[in-house]
Amino acid sequence: MQSIDRNVPANIESARVDLRLFRMAPFFKDVDERGLAGLAAISTLLTVPEGTTLCRQGVPAEHLLVLLEGQVALENVGASGASAVVEVVQPGGHCMLSAVLSGLPGLMNARTITAATLIGVEATGLRELLHREVSVASALLRAGAEEFGAMVRQVCDLKLRTTAQRLSCYLLELTEEPADNTVSMRLPFDKRLLAARLGCRQENLSRAFAALRRLGVETHGARVTLHDIAGLRSYALSGA
Amino acid sequence: MQSIDRNVPANIESARVDLRLFRMAPFFKDVDERGLAGLAAISTLLTVPEGTTLCRQGVPAEHLLVLLEGQVALENVGASGASAVVEVVQPGGHCMLSAVLSGLPGLMNARTITAATLIGVEATGLRELLHREVSVASALLRAGAEEFGAMVRQVCDLKLRTTAQRLSCYLLELTEEPADNTVSMRLPFDKRLLAARLGCRQENLSRAFAALRRLGVETHGARVTLHDIAGLRSYALSGA
Repeated sequence: MQSIDRNVPANIESARVDLRLFRMAPFFKDVDERGLAGLAAISTLLTVPEGTTLCRQGVPAEHLLVLLEGQVALENVGASGASAVVEVVQPGGHCMLSAVLSGLPGLMNARTITAATLIGVEATGLRELLHREVSVASALLRAGAEEFGAMVRQVCDLKLRTTAQRLSCYLLELTEEPADNTVSMRLPFDKRLLAARLGCRQENLSRAFAALRRLGVETHGARVTLHDIAGLRSYALSGA
Repeated sequence: MQSIDRNVPANIESARVDLRLFRMAPFFKDVDERGLAGLAAISTLLTVPEGTTLCRQGVPAEHLLVLLEGQVALENVGASGASAVVEVVQPGGHCMLSAVLSGLPGLMNARTITAATLIGVEATGLRELLHREVSVASALLRAGAEEFGAMVRQVCDLKLRTTAQRLSCYLLELTEEPADNTVSMRLPFDKRLLAARLGCRQENLSRAFAALRRLGVETHGARVTLHDIAGLRSYALSGA
């Protein structure tokens, strides 16, 4: 048992990380053997219950967190106390990279919204490794650029698209390139959190789902069926 | 005369960069002497007319650009052809850092909206320097984290705040911590671009300016006076 951040007591089980787990995470796919061994030496496998705060806004991050299973919400709390859901990280994703690379205080709270398994890579050790191992540096810089790119895409979506279009984009991202024009899936989290992630009120999300019905989007609770992926994509990408 | 990107012919004058110019840019403030010498060896001072495309979306960036004078708009063009103004870079700011660090294609077009003077740091040389000079690596990683942070703040603003609140935030950013409760300034660019940067239509920007009149925001063309900075700040930060 340990807390992953000195300031955050948490009910977390930790274990050594098997090298095979590193190879499972896209994050580390181009890291060479020596780089992986260096990472393994400063990493811990974390098993975390739902509702655990992993990192706090305003505090330097002590670990880079790579998510293997479960979901983590990244939230930013403004001066007024209002909280924005910046992202909900899915397996394969990561948290706190920017804070870990720079040593600056983190910008967001990271909180598990399901039980989760993560690799925690110790921040100071990672910054040292970055200067020694080029393959680790490349992987981190690439992941940083992808993380930045995801934020740029959100900024553009929020500036150009309506809630219904942003919802369409989000649903299409969840479908993972289906061959078919129809797909059925479960929303990965509840509609309250989905509304916050999309940046709208819950009543606007309901209106957006209603508006998408004519584009073949059928919902029963958390179950969503897209009956016309091509049509939905064309609508989602049509801009403002 | 040269074009700064192989694929972008442009009417650009170039010269060697005086070391004093590096010291003027906050970007390089913690870089040591050896790092600055390394940077100077791979940098060019660029004098660029208004309306020049410096980098194109989808193409790897050949230079990190640090803006000394003038303004540069960063725009992302979506699949539909609609273009979002992600940021308007002011002197002291930079462009293309994320693409330069990762070697991945750039996410945005960078275009001068005034005549501009920039330091162009050659991308491949910079990536090599990053692995040799710890003070350069630290400066770049910190700048990357700040750039990421600026995008996170935009995402939060767009999710939580109305157009009038986002406009208030933007006007307050332009005031640079005045001691007084009143300040007068010129908008750095036209209202069409301001609307795009804030992510609203021009008519909504006009409505937002009208709504801010009761909070002491007075406009005459590009001239803006804030008569109650404390009140405006409290309104801007009040969240959704």
